[in-house]
Amino acid sequence: MTRPKLHDFELSGNCYKVRLLCALLGVALDLAPTDLANGAHKKAPLIDMNPFGQVPIFEDGDVIVRDSQAILVYIARKWGGEQWLPLEAEPMAKVIEWLMVAENEIARGPNDARLHDKFGRKVDIALAREKAAHILELMQRHLAVNDWLALGRPTIADIACMPYVALGHEGGVALDPYPAVAAWITRIKALPGFVTMPGL
Amino acid sequence: MTRPKLHDFELSGNCYKVRLLCALLGVALDLAPTDLANGAHKKAPLIDMNPFGQVPIFEDGDVIVRDSQAILVYIARKWGGEQWLPLEAEPMAKVIEWLMVAENEIARGPNDARLHDKFGRKVDIALAREKAAHILELMQRHLAVNDWLALGRPTIADIACMPYVALGHEGGVALDPYPAVAAWITRIKALPGFVTMPGL
Repeated sequence: MTRPKLHDFELSGNCYKVRLLCALLGVALDLAPTDLANGAHKKAPLIDMNPFGQVPIFEDGDVIVRDSQAILVYIARKWGGEQWLPLEAEPMAKVIEWLMVAENEIARGPNDARLHDKFGRKVDIALAREKAAHILELMQRHLAVNDWLALGRPTIADIACMPYVALGHEGGVALDPYPAVAAWITRIKALPGFVTMPGL
Repeated sequence: MTRPKLHDFELSGNCYKVRLLCALLGVALDLAPTDLANGAHKKAPLIDMNPFGQVPIFEDGDVIVRDSQAILVYIARKWGGEQWLPLEAEPMAKVIEWLMVAENEIARGPNDARLHDKFGRKVDIALAREKAAHILELMQRHLAVNDWLALGRPTIADIACMPYVALGHEGGVALDPYPAVAAWITRIKALPGFVTMPGL
């Protein structure tokens, strides 16, 4: 059996999500580092695999999946049973709600702020910090009474939302006002098989 | 059996997605119009159901689901078999890829442009139009060789992505340069049970 391959960038929180879920599930993964500095993601062969011109790209035999949240769904369905993504309507929807928060509020909040501060990306930094504060307040209230985001156990919701929240300090978004969020990150770091990334 | 209830706003494309999928599936739905002008979505009881302060909110007995994409997943799983959201890893991930496009690229493109032009929302309109052009070019290329976004049949991917693309003209985003996108909208409008919304 061919091992799945991740077209990867070490400092990308979106790529890290994929590495983390594979590590937690014990899925062996080949990492193909992407030369973002030279625009490899905007040229063949990567642009043909993902016309959106982004990594991560996940290759599993003939299957190619783009978007970090969709890749988490693929991995959870293929190797995770129902542990990380249940199939019943209600718990599945609860997980998807938070995947959408990762794709929207967290991407436009702490992730955008980090892109600005760490990578010099043109971003409305005041707006990104405002959005970061808003989503972190919501997460603080939620995690003050829940150990995990979607269900009574860790799911891909937690894997999807954690990286850019935990990396927020690289975009001027500190977690001091959000102790329940910080405690949740500590719980994720204690999961068997956890791997880290630079800055975490 | 209690009918599910949608906390609705007629002009919201996100609420319309929910009404449309229920219509296509023959799911009877109670509509509770939301008084957005008076901030009903930011006050009790709605803010307690959805701390994000937005509609749609979907109530099905004791279950409350927020976020239009997550609501589509809930409805598809509960009433749609595997027709609109398959459970196998690859086709499910293909559907989720496009749900993420609805939550990200389409929301920050044609939807933001419409929020600016139609509702006076403070938005970087040049950036929204640039993002709209980018995602519409990608969709044009994809739909030039595929009838539907994710699979060889309509899925919730199409329902999630269509409304704000088809409403783009209300934000200065015309579809003339994207004939394959326009043809895809026509195919959706021809689905048995289709319902429309103002502006479509």
